[in-house]
Amino acid sequence: MPKTILIVYAHPEPTSLTRRFVSESVKTLEQQGHTVLQSDLYGMGWKATFDESDFPSRINSDRLAFIQESEHAYTTNQQTQDVTTEQHKLLAADAVIFHFPLWWFGMPAILKGWIDRVYAYGFAYGYKGEGNRYRYGDGALKGKRALLSVMVGGPEDDYSPRGINGPLEELLFPITHGMLFFPGMDVLPTHAVYGTGKPSKAIVEKEIAAWRLRLEHLFNESPIPFRPQNDGEYQRNILAEHIAVGMTGLSIHIDN
Amino acid sequence: MPKTILIVYAHPEPTSLTRRFVSESVKTLEQQGHTVLQSDLYGMGWKATFDESDFPSRINSDRLAFIQESEHAYTTNQQTQDVTTEQHKLLAADAVIFHFPLWWFGMPAILKGWIDRVYAYGFAYGYKGEGNRYRYGDGALKGKRALLSVMVGGPEDDYSPRGINGPLEELLFPITHGMLFFPGMDVLPTHAVYGTGKPSKAIVEKEIAAWRLRLEHLFNESPIPFRPQNDGEYQRNILAEHIAVGMTGLSIHIDN
Repeated sequence: MPKTILIVYAHPEPTSLTRRFVSESVKTLEQQGHTVLQSDLYGMGWKATFDESDFPSRINSDRLAFIQESEHAYTTNQQTQDVTTEQHKLLAADAVIFHFPLWWFGMPAILKGWIDRVYAYGFAYGYKGEGNRYRYGDGALKGKRALLSVMVGGPEDDYSPRGINGPLEELLFPITHGMLFFPGMDVLPTHAVYGTGKPSKAIVEKEIAAWRLRLEHLFNESPIPFRPQNDGEYQRNILAEHIAVGMTGLSIHIDN
Repeated sequence: MPKTILIVYAHPEPTSLTRRFVSESVKTLEQQGHTVLQSDLYGMGWKATFDESDFPSRINSDRLAFIQESEHAYTTNQQTQDVTTEQHKLLAADAVIFHFPLWWFGMPAILKGWIDRVYAYGFAYGYKGEGNRYRYGDGALKGKRALLSVMVGGPEDDYSPRGINGPLEELLFPITHGMLFFPGMDVLPTHAVYGTGKPSKAIVEKEIAAWRLRLEHLFNESPIPFRPQNDGEYQRNILAEHIAVGMTGLSIHIDN
């Protein structure tokens, strides 16, 4: 069954490993008969900074309040064209893949700015104008799949369960849980390539093959079992006492 | 003893709560006799996107490799003026305070872009050209203090130890540990204000008073006890077996 996949990527160098992976994604997915949409953030000259120019027609021209202006622009169809285009791509997609280098344990600013600007009130949060009612497993992007493909300069040990940087998947929790599961997407385990400084040709080929395998299972792999907000495991947004008894931290929000 | 404090902030609206806190910081610190430096990222029109224009004189004009070009630009004094100015401010500061609204569980893109661009190789990482030798408690910014002042739209419960978003301090670990402790700074516990959507005037005054208290103790409060890389608690960048025995996750890197 052919699907539509949106690929969002953030690296300006066509010969970078990030872009090598993007090319592989496009090729592999199209060979499978899928439709691929692309958002080449550097190539598009994506505006990273969320600011007053995102609101050409303000509800309050005296004072810039982002949430109110975002809601107003979204609900009255007065967003900028670049933002609506990305929202339409997200809505058209069955899966979204993000390709980026890990910079300071997170996204490059240009990609964070894609989230900041595209994730309007009424769309990615405040869905149906109902505040936090629909989120974490529910929302406008419910049922779509999301997958991070991350290029990591440092060695894998540094990101291992007791590695000095912290485990990669926990460092990415604000993205996987907070940006992708939040508006409803099913998030697959992150695909990381480590030690990307100067990989040998053989290693690159091995890594590309491993990535191809992830792509082939994009629609049948099990997502990270984040706990949905609205399935009874939370009571007033706090994890119920009988679940993960006595524990705290990010990992309690995963039903392992 | 008068000190120098750098305030980096990311909100374009002068009447926002973020900017109210900035004003309070400037006033309180100057009243104490300190020197205050400011980086008003929106006001400066800070370029958020790290790209080829950051390297006016490339070591390799065929292929853009960020780390190599960053090292080259930094060591040969060929960075852009906006970046060197920020680096000089950081070096001049005894403490750095970041004021920003929490957007999607992290920094606004413009602030992430300040990190991406100012944190050059040789400066914030690869100190002395020695890869990862100096980091996590050691590096160019060693001995300085850092403090996040974060405006959070949602309620405090959602960020509590078992709250659905995850505990705030763990969500911010990539920043506090990964961006501030990494180049050597002592990081104070985050100062958060929750429910910043429409606070009453009384609540704002109460919050400002609480913030003033934090400012007054900026130089005698205890930092988060992140474990330094080079004090013997890590063996090849993995936490030694006898410490936090059998535990994993972000919190093991804090010596509580």
